[in-house]
Amino acid sequence: MSLIVQKFGGSSVKDAERLFNVADIVTSVYKEGNDVVVVVSAQGDTTDDLIEKANEINPNASKREMDQMLTAGEQISASLLAMAIEKLGYPVVSLLGWQAGFLTTSAYGNARIRRVNPDRIRKELDKKNIVIVTGFQGVNRYDDMTTLGRGGSDTSAVAIACAMHADRCQIYTDVDGVYTADPRKIPAARKLDVISYDEMLELATLGAQVLHNRSVEMAKKYNLELEVLSSYSRKPGTIVKEENKVEKMLISGVAKDTNVARISVIGVPDKPGLAFKIFSKLSSKGINVDIILQSIGRNGTKDISFTIAKDNLEDAKELLQPYVEAIGANSLSCDDQVAKISIVGAGMESHPGVASDMFEALFSSNINIRMISTSEIKISVLVNIEDADRAVKAVHDKFFD
Amino acid sequence: MSLIVQKFGGSSVKDAERLFNVADIVTSVYKEGNDVVVVVSAQGDTTDDLIEKANEINPNASKREMDQMLTAGEQISASLLAMAIEKLGYPVVSLLGWQAGFLTTSAYGNARIRRVNPDRIRKELDKKNIVIVTGFQGVNRYDDMTTLGRGGSDTSAVAIACAMHADRCQIYTDVDGVYTADPRKIPAARKLDVISYDEMLELATLGAQVLHNRSVEMAKKYNLELEVLSSYSRKPGTIVKEENKVEKMLISGVAKDTNVARISVIGVPDKPGLAFKIFSKLSSKGINVDIILQSIGRNGTKDISFTIAKDNLEDAKELLQPYVEAIGANSLSCDDQVAKISIVGAGMESHPGVASDMFEALFSSNINIRMISTSEIKISVLVNIEDADRAVKAVHDKFFD
Repeated sequence: MSLIVQKFGGSSVKDAERLFNVADIVTSVYKEGNDVVVVVSAQGDTTDDLIEKANEINPNASKREMDQMLTAGEQISASLLAMAIEKLGYPVVSLLGWQAGFLTTSAYGNARIRRVNPDRIRKELDKKNIVIVTGFQGVNRYDDMTTLGRGGSDTSAVAIACAMHADRCQIYTDVDGVYTADPRKIPAARKLDVISYDEMLELATLGAQVLHNRSVEMAKKYNLELEVLSSYSRKPGTIVKEENKVEKMLISGVAKDTNVARISVIGVPDKPGLAFKIFSKLSSKGINVDIILQSIGRNGTKDISFTIAKDNLEDAKELLQPYVEAIGANSLSCDDQVAKISIVGAGMESHPGVASDMFEALFSSNINIRMISTSEIKISVLVNIEDADRAVKAVHDKFFD
Repeated sequence: MSLIVQKFGGSSVKDAERLFNVADIVTSVYKEGNDVVVVVSAQGDTTDDLIEKANEINPNASKREMDQMLTAGEQISASLLAMAIEKLGYPVVSLLGWQAGFLTTSAYGNARIRRVNPDRIRKELDKKNIVIVTGFQGVNRYDDMTTLGRGGSDTSAVAIACAMHADRCQIYTDVDGVYTADPRKIPAARKLDVISYDEMLELATLGAQVLHNRSVEMAKKYNLELEVLSSYSRKPGTIVKEENKVEKMLISGVAKDTNVARISVIGVPDKPGLAFKIFSKLSSKGINVDIILQSIGRNGTKDISFTIAKDNLEDAKELLQPYVEAIGANSLSCDDQVAKISIVGAGMESHPGVASDMFEALFSSNINIRMISTSEIKISVLVNIEDADRAVKAVHDKFFD
């Protein structure tokens, strides 16, 4: 008998038919004699619909009230799934985040899990109940509802699996695993059987959007094996596990991220600290900077370019425009028609030729590289957005054909 | 400075416009320097929509899961109202039943409030917050969500008002008070300025449906004055208070109840206990019997007729049919095309002519009386459903013209 934690996303529970499909997967694992804990997201577009409803009333509503409202979404899907499982004749109980012992920080809208107290879940499992838990939510020390941010249900599932020392943690989604590139765009993309935590983390941050990166970080910390698989196909998926257990592939995947914008501050006077101040201003507003490029401008000035998430562009412009004027820089230039193409692979550490192979592939396809950034297991380049899909194909062909 | 508890029903919060109307009422009381606790129902048809969604999946879903789901309705409306109040620039916080300290029995779907622990509400009021509380819901001793049954938000409001010794408890609804008859049917109906708890209770049970009767019982027990008023008109409503403070009106109202069915067991053998057994069978299934009439049948048998809620008719038939055969009674006859017309008035105790005036009014309008039941402050008659509206008018004209 094993303890299995399963997580199902919003599209997997979006209507009665999909709910019964999930009920079927869950009960077939339970029937084999396992303890099963199931984490669910809100149905389909419920969360977006609720946000729209709130915006109609008050676009500047407090995050506290927003969270208090949004947690209703998983509450409804969790009960409906429990009802579907009851219908199939199995004992089941649904628990809200606070009932399931999810204690979080107070950062409404983006809370972090401080601790999972699994007493109630364990009690229900001892009663032979299948336990459904609302993902994405918890409760802070004041007994107020919190949410974990977009994709937080993955983290909920991993947190339960770690707290309860689960034997398996399965993340069901609408793709059947992790691919070497987006299979809807690159027909030659291959499904990976295994991938390391670090590679998965790079892919998650790079816009592959299969797993929420906080969930992968947590799984890595607790050395919990994750399985990413499809609730539609019911085929084996991709296992995410410790690097030394994964055969090092030169490249495990090619990812595209279009939520990127480039900002350049032109003509920064060459005084110590001026450049640093730009980045501390951005970080104080929670804006993350990714690729940074500094170049020599004219008359002893510098040009500083960097990328941020496209969502943050307006905030960043507003923040930097007065600063650019104050320090006497020349101008601020922005471009949101860019995309970041990355290759990730634990094996590239020991293969210095990978970067030049990538650049060559892009050059052969006449794609202009605007910025470059590298880490031990990742190479990213910034290209014009209209070149993005061709760039992914060119790089994928180079390494996987 | 007073502590005011206000309750708003589903139609009062059904959309953004109505929510801002409520926000306006709430903040105008807060601006005068009062502490304000607001109890809300789910928006418009939310509860019915959720029930329908559940029925699509499992018409026999457990009541536990049903309650777990349904509480999401008030959760959403409470947060939305808080967001509307934030928009108007006032400090506010919304609390769910469990956060607000509502401890209930475990009778899912129809739980009773055991205790309200108002510590959290008090803490929020001390911080000068307007406090919004989800009506209709609480939590049992196992930390599971419960609902109080239809109209339970009235009871939530009264329970908070009693627990916190509120100075006023206002029940906002879509009518502007308690009338001598349904004003949509009887144009001559008058709004009452005051009514006693007992009269209100009789009217509530008799289908006037202005206040949930458990809320009136609780208000009576704690001697809490209630005010029933409209969230639309903003005029003074009707005060419900202790009888000795109310000028005794001969008749305070005429009510019609169409959720009635009559059952007759014909030819019950005249043995002790047989009749009693009918009623204990019904009560064991939670079916309440209202008017009872026993008459002499042929050959030393008896006929027993009684009324129940129309909703219970199928259950009652199923329960009684085998029994009727087992005791050798003649037959079971049922009629759901009936209505109960009642007059209520604390003054009728000392005026013996009231009943005959009522019967005369019905007789003059050619309305056949099928059963009669009287209490100290109430007279009810059963009539054919097609005569019901004429009967109300005839009786109302008799006493109020």
